[in-house]
Amino acid sequence: MAITLGAHQYGKSATRLVHVGRDGQEHQLVDMTVDVTLTGDFADTYLTGDNSRVLPTDSQKNAVYAFARRYGVAVIEDFAALLARHFVDSQQSVHAARVSITAYHWRRLGPHSFQRCGDETRRAIVTYDGSQTWVVSGLTDLVLLNSTGSEFHGFIKDPYTTLAETTDRILATVVNAYWRYRTGDGDWNASYQATRQALIDAFVQTHSLSLQQTLYAMAERVLAQCAEVVEVRLALPNRHHLLVDLSPFGLDNPNVVFNATEQPYGLIEGTVLRDDAPPAGRAWALSA
Amino acid sequence: MAITLGAHQYGKSATRLVHVGRDGQEHQLVDMTVDVTLTGDFADTYLTGDNSRVLPTDSQKNAVYAFARRYGVAVIEDFAALLARHFVDSQQSVHAARVSITAYHWRRLGPHSFQRCGDETRRAIVTYDGSQTWVVSGLTDLVLLNSTGSEFHGFIKDPYTTLAETTDRILATVVNAYWRYRTGDGDWNASYQATRQALIDAFVQTHSLSLQQTLYAMAERVLAQCAEVVEVRLALPNRHHLLVDLSPFGLDNPNVVFNATEQPYGLIEGTVLRDDAPPAGRAWALSA
Amino acid sequence: MAITLGAHQYGKSATRLVHVGRDGQEHQLVDMTVDVTLTGDFADTYLTGDNSRVLPTDSQKNAVYAFARRYGVAVIEDFAALLARHFVDSQQSVHAARVSITAYHWRRLGPHSFQRCGDETRRAIVTYDGSQTWVVSGLTDLVLLNSTGSEFHGFIKDPYTTLAETTDRILATVVNAYWRYRTGDGDWNASYQATRQALIDAFVQTHSLSLQQTLYAMAERVLAQCAEVVEVRLALPNRHHLLVDLSPFGLDNPNVVFNATEQPYGLIEGTVLRDDAPPAGRAWALSA
Amino acid sequence: MAITLGAHQYGKSATRLVHVGRDGQEHQLVDMTVDVTLTGDFADTYLTGDNSRVLPTDSQKNAVYAFARRYGVAVIEDFAALLARHFVDSQQSVHAARVSITAYHWRRLGPHSFQRCGDETRRAIVTYDGSQTWVVSGLTDLVLLNSTGSEFHGFIKDPYTTLAETTDRILATVVNAYWRYRTGDGDWNASYQATRQALIDAFVQTHSLSLQQTLYAMAERVLAQCAEVVEVRLALPNRHHLLVDLSPFGLDNPNVVFNATEQPYGLIEGTVLRDDAPPAGRAWALSA
Repeated sequence: MAITLGAHQYGKSATRLVHVGRDGQEHQLVDMTVDVTLTGDFADTYLTGDNSRVLPTDSQKNAVYAFARRYGVAVIEDFAALLARHFVDSQQSVHAARVSITAYHWRRLGPHSFQRCGDETRRAIVTYDGSQTWVVSGLTDLVLLNSTGSEFHGFIKDPYTTLAETTDRILATVVNAYWRYRTGDGDWNASYQATRQALIDAFVQTHSLSLQQTLYAMAERVLAQCAEVVEVRLALPNRHHLLVDLSPFGLDNPNVVFNATEQPYGLIEGTVLRDDAPPAGRAWALSA
Repeated sequence: MAITLGAHQYGKSATRLVHVGRDGQEHQLVDMTVDVTLTGDFADTYLTGDNSRVLPTDSQKNAVYAFARRYGVAVIEDFAALLARHFVDSQQSVHAARVSITAYHWRRLGPHSFQRCGDETRRAIVTYDGSQTWVVSGLTDLVLLNSTGSEFHGFIKDPYTTLAETTDRILATVVNAYWRYRTGDGDWNASYQATRQALIDAFVQTHSLSLQQTLYAMAERVLAQCAEVVEVRLALPNRHHLLVDLSPFGLDNPNVVFNATEQPYGLIEGTVLRDDAPPAGRAWALSA
Repeated sequence: MAITLGAHQYGKSATRLVHVGRDGQEHQLVDMTVDVTLTGDFADTYLTGDNSRVLPTDSQKNAVYAFARRYGVAVIEDFAALLARHFVDSQQSVHAARVSITAYHWRRLGPHSFQRCGDETRRAIVTYDGSQTWVVSGLTDLVLLNSTGSEFHGFIKDPYTTLAETTDRILATVVNAYWRYRTGDGDWNASYQATRQALIDAFVQTHSLSLQQTLYAMAERVLAQCAEVVEVRLALPNRHHLLVDLSPFGLDNPNVVFNATEQPYGLIEGTVLRDDAPPAGRAWALSA
Repeated sequence: MAITLGAHQYGKSATRLVHVGRDGQEHQLVDMTVDVTLTGDFADTYLTGDNSRVLPTDSQKNAVYAFARRYGVAVIEDFAALLARHFVDSQQSVHAARVSITAYHWRRLGPHSFQRCGDETRRAIVTYDGSQTWVVSGLTDLVLLNSTGSEFHGFIKDPYTTLAETTDRILATVVNAYWRYRTGDGDWNASYQATRQALIDAFVQTHSLSLQQTLYAMAERVLAQCAEVVEVRLALPNRHHLLVDLSPFGLDNPNVVFNATEQPYGLIEGTVLRDDAPPAGRAWALSA
């Protein structure tokens, strides 16, 4: 019996980058967190502490800042791809790189004034292995709620089932969505806007018999409207809004007063894809 | 030497209430967290465990839900005042009550569909002592940034000063604002909108020589535009955006690439008030 | 009607300081966050942006690090006092200073190895106004639970009361305690240990008829055992553990299976003090 | 081109369970959060909203509580396995189940009194597919620090490298460790204790040339000492402690005063396994 090193990777996480574009009369603000992950010929540092093939994570952070100055950050997927290719192409020991960007939204208040718009993030995850580039985009923390138009009934009743069937409930969720593109080139900003809108539209317009059904409708809408997307992965927590029993106080409660709970929560996950989607390769996992 | 009980208070915190107004064609969604605090004749339970004058915090929570059904929640200050008066007027042992509400913003997406708008909250803090009602409103977690128009120089240089003077920096802050009204009656929704806009306008329009100056300008603007407000309290963390030194990489950095840091941070606080403001009484502290 | 500047203060928050004492064979690790707040002759920067009396918060941060090197950090109250006196005594415009320290616990694993011990913090809040020093110590996030020995009954039943009376419940809380010392000098480490132990002992040993009663017992124990402490302030959230109703599944539940909830929660607050306690002065509020 | 449903799963997350064992003279407290995830014949609810094969997540939560009463929770891996088997064996539509438990530590203070011990968690992740059971255990949020005995040099210097080589630095990390057992039966509590101790011992005793080397040493130690473990996965963030430059203040800093930063951070990940480890199957991913 021997002990061996399996999959391994490393990199710099959570480099905070704010870029102010000052070319026009209005400033352009881009605010993001960058995570770099590298895989390659790094076994020596794990096994013996020989760092001769290790690019320090501090250097990765510096490259992020320098590239932002040199190339700008107008499209986060493009910026991530530039960085990923840089790490692989400039260092023999780096066989593949992933650059994952989380961008935050700001609303313009003036030529150089901005207001942060909540927790919703835009994500770009770009992986490059020396020959191929995989692009995944996404969004997180988009909180949506329908105050009616949601039912849940006809489910299994086992000995532990006490849940009442309902034809009218609040459906609320936090959208965490990632989608894979067919190719490594695209108009990523346009695709992001279209995908985000498709997700929202489908949530709003679907009369829901289950959050699973809503999930599928959201992903299907993206694929129907965005030809460049081949796969959508959604994780939708069910933010339960419990109808408060007001009968002890002589009051009815016709879906008016709710207790919004955080835990426990249902978690519904699903992948929806085209049947001609190319293999995912390293799109979803660097150390495949 | 004797040991005595000093100021004491208790109540139910963090009751989560979502109210769906279903009267019109469009649903109205109000989402809030309610904190109740009571003070009064409660020494016995502290000293001996005699609970005969204690209204359970569970009953306070139930009252929040029942009142939401009975009276609606159209204006959070009014809802808070209703509750505060209820606790004092219905229980002899309750001498004063504070109801503090944190409301969350949702954007309408459809007749019964909504999207949560970030972390910014609207606050209402209403205190009632059996005869007088004090109303404080507020907002928290409004994140603002000016990418230019901010200077900082002319400060003290002591032996520990290494900060460079600057005539152009990013100024970013998280607005935490509370304001006190002259009376216990008002059009609170209109006042909130006007106050919030005044805070934002002043931040955007002030060419800043210090965050302190911006703070005063924001508070002054509120008082200038909202006659019903007599006092404004602001706490503004200075979210430092550090200019990244790119010279080791042969690059300049003319205020383009920044590292957004979370700690440490400057914290600037100040109260601005009218000279004819009535005494604050219990507006800011229940157990005065 | 004129608009005036009221109470105001500023400073550097959240300076993270780790000090490694390397004098003996074993390293000594002290890990803390330091908040500095100054008040004084700062109206000009608020009113006009004139910073000539402003000590930059960046310089305050530098002083924290330099003082740690120069004087060590063996006792956090002493370190806070050194800093507070420095700011007031070295700058004419600084009339009073508060230095608040949050220290984190580490357990020794070896001569230079340590394991972080949870979220519990030790606090020191020292205020100096040029002539007097006030010392408040504290602790936060100490989570305690009694699985029996707690009752709650005999309370008011109003129309919103549905809570069942109980003679056996779980009592759990997060201790947030602050205590004021009679003088500005003391053996702070010994006092902290004694105070913390008194709080825990009283929680464990008190058969509780209400969390209020437990609060008083905890504070009283501190005052009984620590002569140098003159006032104790406690804020105890009631972390409700709800007995799960298992009767739909044909099971009893004799206080065995609980749902630990985070919200809503009761919040019990109280001050207990000696009747000969000196006036609090600025101990609890810098801008008094 | 058709759109198809790919991998999908659902379940109840974050069921909070506290179990008080009252059999002996001392109470036994077990505090955990339970996540249930099911996969199987659920396509209909995604595609049409037909819930006839869906076991409600609410019923899953109820089963957690009922099983805790019926069987106790002495060993979290065993409790997770009981639940996983229940869901698969009792419902035709459930083809595989994963039950993931996060347990929190409490220190005994008395026969029925306890103190919560920080953020460190113990994890159990049990997966069952109707025939095989996979058991993964783990721990998270164990924060370790060596104040010396750590070097980092000999690394690649690329054009973005400014990091100084060092032969003495602080090495601090937050251990997130998961380990896979060879079989579905074992003395899990004993294995957990041995594995946790091996991780700590290796961290403390390894003179480190890189965090990668420390990672490998930690995993190797587990495999060397715990024959029942076949694979270890570690994710170690490098909590950088930056030496503060005190030279502007005329002070040296021989590794005494540090700024503990949270971001950015290096992230070192690695898998170490026996060469005769059985295939992982669904141990790491339910929807394989």
